Amino acid sequence: MSSPHELQPNWSNAVAAPDSYRSVFKYAPDKFKHPSPGWVEVFKSEFAMTDADFQQRRLTGDEAVQVERKCALTSEQIEAFAQIVGRDNVATDDYSRAKYGTGKAMDEDMDLRAHVVRGAVDLVLHPRNTQDVIHIVAYCNAARIAITPYGGGSGCVVGNQADRGGVAVVMRTHMNKIVRLDEENQVCHVQPGMMGPDYEGALNRAPELFGAKRAYTCGHFPQSFELASVGGWITALGSGQASTYYGDACDIVQSQEYVTPAGIIKTSDIPASAAGPKVNDILKGNEGTFGILVDVGMKIFRHRPENTQRFAYMYPNWQAAVDASREIVQGEFGKPAVFRISDPEETELGLKLKGFDASWGNSLLQAFGQQRMQRCLGVGTVEGEKGFAVNVKKNVSRIARAHGALPLSGWATKQWEHGRYSDVHMREDMLDFGILIDTLETGVTWDNLMNVHRGVREFVKQRPGTICMTHASHFYPQGTNLYFILIMKPKDHDEFKRFRADVVSKIVELGGSLSHHHGVGRLFAPWMERSLGREQMEVLRALKRHFDPNDIMNPGAIFGPMAG
Amino acid sequence: MSSPHELQPNWSNAVAAPDSYRSVFKYAPDKFKHPSPGWVEVFKSEFAMTDADFQQRRLTGDEAVQVERKCALTSEQIEAFAQIVGRDNVATDDYSRAKYGTGKAMDEDMDLRAHVVRGAVDLVLHPRNTQDVIHIVAYCNAARIAITPYGGGSGCVVGNQADRGGVAVVMRTHMNKIVRLDEENQVCHVQPGMMGPDYEGALNRAPELFGAKRAYTCGHFPQSFELASVGGWITALGSGQASTYYGDACDIVQSQEYVTPAGIIKTSDIPASAAGPKVNDILKGNEGTFGILVDVGMKIFRHRPENTQRFAYMYPNWQAAVDASREIVQGEFGKPAVFRISDPEETELGLKLKGFDASWGNSLLQAFGQQRMQRCLGVGTVEGEKGFAVNVKKNVSRIARAHGALPLSGWATKQWEHGRYSDVHMREDMLDFGILIDTLETGVTWDNLMNVHRGVREFVKQRPGTICMTHASHFYPQGTNLYFILIMKPKDHDEFKRFRADVVSKIVELGGSLSHHHGVGRLFAPWMERSLGREQMEVLRALKRHFDPNDIMNPGAIFGPMAG
Repeated sequence: MSSPHELQPNWSNAVAAPDSYRSVFKYAPDKFKHPSPGWVEVFKSEFAMTDADFQQRRLTGDEAVQVERKCALTSEQIEAFAQIVGRDNVATDDYSRAKYGTGKAMDEDMDLRAHVVRGAVDLVLHPRNTQDVIHIVAYCNAARIAITPYGGGSGCVVGNQADRGGVAVVMRTHMNKIVRLDEENQVCHVQPGMMGPDYEGALNRAPELFGAKRAYTCGHFPQSFELASVGGWITALGSGQASTYYGDACDIVQSQEYVTPAGIIKTSDIPASAAGPKVNDILKGNEGTFGILVDVGMKIFRHRPENTQRFAYMYPNWQAAVDASREIVQGEFGKPAVFRISDPEETELGLKLKGFDASWGNSLLQAFGQQRMQRCLGVGTVEGEKGFAVNVKKNVSRIARAHGALPLSGWATKQWEHGRYSDVHMREDMLDFGILIDTLETGVTWDNLMNVHRGVREFVKQRPGTICMTHASHFYPQGTNLYFILIMKPKDHDEFKRFRADVVSKIVELGGSLSHHHGVGRLFAPWMERSLGREQMEVLRALKRHFDPNDIMNPGAIFGPMAG
Repeated sequence: MSSPHELQPNWSNAVAAPDSYRSVFKYAPDKFKHPSPGWVEVFKSEFAMTDADFQQRRLTGDEAVQVERKCALTSEQIEAFAQIVGRDNVATDDYSRAKYGTGKAMDEDMDLRAHVVRGAVDLVLHPRNTQDVIHIVAYCNAARIAITPYGGGSGCVVGNQADRGGVAVVMRTHMNKIVRLDEENQVCHVQPGMMGPDYEGALNRAPELFGAKRAYTCGHFPQSFELASVGGWITALGSGQASTYYGDACDIVQSQEYVTPAGIIKTSDIPASAAGPKVNDILKGNEGTFGILVDVGMKIFRHRPENTQRFAYMYPNWQAAVDASREIVQGEFGKPAVFRISDPEETELGLKLKGFDASWGNSLLQAFGQQRMQRCLGVGTVEGEKGFAVNVKKNVSRIARAHGALPLSGWATKQWEHGRYSDVHMREDMLDFGILIDTLETGVTWDNLMNVHRGVREFVKQRPGTICMTHASHFYPQGTNLYFILIMKPKDHDEFKRFRADVVSKIVELGGSLSHHHGVGRLFAPWMERSLGREQMEVLRALKRHFDPNDIMNPGAIFGPMAG
C-alpha cells in the first residue's frame, strides 16, 4: 500500500478538451476513476515499474484532432444532405469527422493517442427522425456513399470505422426518445439513440412520465450501460449483467424497424407466429450492415428493487464454482439476475485490491481450507416477485454449500455493484503510463468450459507479465461465457495486436464462440468464416446482398472489406 | 343424453385397411375415440340432424388408394435412388405415393374421401442416415427433382403435398433415434424422424437407457404429440401445451443440421454468440423449403412429475379470464406450464358435454353469479422445482381470485389432460357423417386480443349452424394465441373452403398473425405477403434462393407455387 513518503501517480484530472483526441477515445470526457493504490502495487510488481514510471504521462491525446484525409464528398452532395436533415444537423469539422467514425476499441484508443485517425467520415449527419434516415439511405444508396451508423459509440470491436469515408448517421443526438410505452403488452417502443440511463430512468418513472400503473425496468445493464445506446445493445448483440434472468439483448427485443437500401422493414409486436422463418430474429446483430435501426420494441419488466436478494459465496476452487453454477442454472427453480463467478486469478486480485489478503478474513478462509489461487468468488442477485426471489436464493444457497462454498455477506455483491459501470474509466489512466487493459470473451458449452479456460490461460501465461483475470457472468442451462481481462505493458501496439490475434485464434481453435456479447465489427471479421463455417457465412452474405446490394451500410463490419 | 330406445350412431370400429384412403387420412389407422352421446346431442341440435342421419357413413375412404398420375421419373433415376438408399428403402406403390405426399389437413381428408389424390409423389425414399440424405439432395438438385420431406405427417396446413411430383424423403422410418444425450449441457441430439412419444419416453428413462444421472423431459407436448416427429416440431414452428413454461419449439432448439442444395449447414450448441446475426434462428420454421433437417440439438429439462401442481378456476367472464391471465404471465413469479382459458362458448360446450350444465355444480356456480355463456374455464399446471411450483400456484390463485374466479378442484385439469391427445380421433367419425371440425389459430398482442376474438366470432357466427369454440393456450408477457375450433356441416367442400378463407382473411385483417403454431404450408401461403408485408417476404425469398436456387425443396410451401 502507498505511504505518504511514496510518490503518488500523476493521474490526469483534467476534463478532456472538447476538440481533443482524448475527448474522442475517453469513455466520458469528464468522468474519472483512478486506479487504487492496490492496483498501482500490482502494476509495479507485474510490470517491474517504479514510482517514477507513474509521473510522466505519454501520448495523452490532449491535442486538437486533425483529420488529414480531405472530405471526398462534393459540395452538391453536402448541400443535398443539408437539405435532408437541416443545416444545423450537418457537421464537417475534424473533431466530428473523427469522433463519429470511432468507437472505444483499444486499437482506436492507441491509434488516436498516436494521432492516427483511421475511421474519419467525410460528413456527420444528425437525423431528426425516421423520414430523415429514409432520405439519407436512399440518397447514399443512389450515390454509393458509405454510411456509418453511430449509437452510443461504446463498441469495443471497431464497429464504427469509416474505412471508405462517407457519412456518419448519429442516432443519439435526436433519435433518443421513448416513442410509446405500451404497458398492456409490456413493450416499450424506443428510438435507438436513447442512452441506457435515460431509458432506464424513464421506465423507472413510468407512472409519473407516462401515467403507467407500474414502474418498469429494461433488464439490460451491460458494463457500458452509461455509455451505450439501446440501438447498440440490439445491433451488436449485447448482454447485460443481469442477463441470466432477463435474457441477452436479442431476447429482450420484441420488434424492430430498419431502414435499409432494400426498403423499410418493420416486424410485429405479436409474441409468436408460425408464419415462416422469423425475419425479426435475423435482423438482430447486423451491426448496421443491413440497415439503420430506427425503432425497437423492447420487452419491459416490473421494477421492484425492494425485492432484490443478494448473495455471495467463496468456492474452494474453480471446478466447484463451475459445477455449482451449472446446477443452479439447470435447477428450474428460477434464475438469478446477476450471476457471476471469478476464477482464481480474478478472485485473488480482487481480494488483494480490497486489502483482504492481509486481513483476518483471509485467515478465516484459509482455516476453512480455502487456498490462495484456488478459491473462487461467486456473487449474484435475484429479482422478480418476492416469493420467487426468496426461493431462488434459498436454492442457490443449498447448492453452493453442497459444493463446499462459504457464504459471504451481501457486502461482496454490493462492492461489485459499486464498481460495475465506473471501472472502465481506469483505462485512460493506465494507458497514460503504457499499461493496457483489454478484454476478450467467448460463449462456451458446459462441457468445453474448462478446456477453453485452461487453454486460453496457458497460452496467455506464456507471455511474461500478463495478468489474465477470468469470470463467467452470463449463464444458460446449456453453457455460459468466459470473459478474459488481459492487463499488460506491451512493447508496442503491434506486439499487443499480434498477441491478441493469437488469443482470438486460440479461443476459436478451442471451440469457444468468436464473441459472446461484444459483436464482430472489423476486429473479429477476419475470424468469422473460420468460426461459423463457410455455409453460415454464405447465408449472411446472401442477406447482406439482399439488404445492401451496393455495400454502403457500415462496409467492413462483420463481413470484412469485401462484403458486396 | 341418449337413451336405450334411441339408435346409436353407426361409428366405425374397423381398423383402416393398410392400402386404403382411410389409412392415409386417419390420424392413426387403429385408434378411435367416438364422440360422446353429449356430442351427438350437440350435432343434432346445431345441425338439425336426426338419429337416422348417423346410420349411413358416407365417403369413408375404405377403398384401396389409386394414383392416376404416372410416375414421371425414368427407370434410370429410380435405379439411381435405389443405389443411394438401398432397394428396400424405395417404394413405388400407389399407397406409399399418396401417403407420403399427404398431411392431415382437412382439405386432404376431404379430397381423399372423394378419391382425389392431389399430392402423390413419384417415388418414396426412406433414407437410412445423413449420407443418404446428402446424396438424395445432390441428385435431386442436379436433376431438378422436387423433394417432399416427410416427418410424422401430422401437419394440418398442406405442408407435404407434392404438387410437382418428385420424391418423398421419409424421415421417420430410419432416422428416428437419439444420437447423443448430452446431460452436462442439457442438450439431446435427435434425428428428426423420431416420434414424440418415443423421444419423451427415452428421455424419461435416461438413467436406464443412457446411464444419465437424471430423468429428462422434452417439454414439448402439442396435441399432435403422438402423431408428430421432432423434426416437424421445429421445421413448422410448433407449440406444445406446456409452452408457457418450456417455450415454443423454436425456443427449445439449441442447434440444427440441414442438408440443403447449397450445402450442409450445421449450427453450434454454444448457447450464446454475438458473432453476427444468428443463422440458427432463421433456419427454424422453413418447412423443408430450405433443406432437410437431419439432426437437431434440443434443450432438455428435468423430469419431476412428482412436483406438478394443478389448478382450475371458473372466471365470471372472458374479460376477467384474460385480465387475470395477463397479470399471471407478467407477474414474474415464474410461469405455469400448461395454461389455458376457454371462452364462454367453449366453456359452456365443455360443461354440457360433461353433463355439468344440469348438475348441482351448475346451480352452485350460478348462485355465485356465474352465468351461462359468460363464465370461462381456466386450467393449468406448474412444473419445475417444488418450491418454484408451489410459489407459482400460490400466485395464480391470488390473482385468479382477485379477478372473481371460483376455484375448481384439479379434477377439471385432469379431465382436460385425459383427452389432450385422443380428441383428434373424433374427426373421422364426424366426417363419416358430413360434420367437419377444423381449427384456425393466431398470435395476438394483449391489446388486440378482444378485438380479434370478437371480430372473428362475429364473422363466423354470421354463418348459421357454426360452432366456434375459442381458447388461449400459449402465454407470453407480450400476448397470447387464440385458437378457434370450427364445427359445421357444410353444403360441400367448396363452401367450407371459401368460408375458411374468409375467416383467415378476417384474422389477418384484424391484426392477428397468420398462424401461431400450425405453420404455413400451402394452405396459408397465399396470405403470407399480406400478413408479413412485401419486405419481409423478400427476405424469405432471398433466403430461399440462396438455399434452394432450383426450387426443388418442398416447392409450394410457404412461398406458393412461384418461389424460385
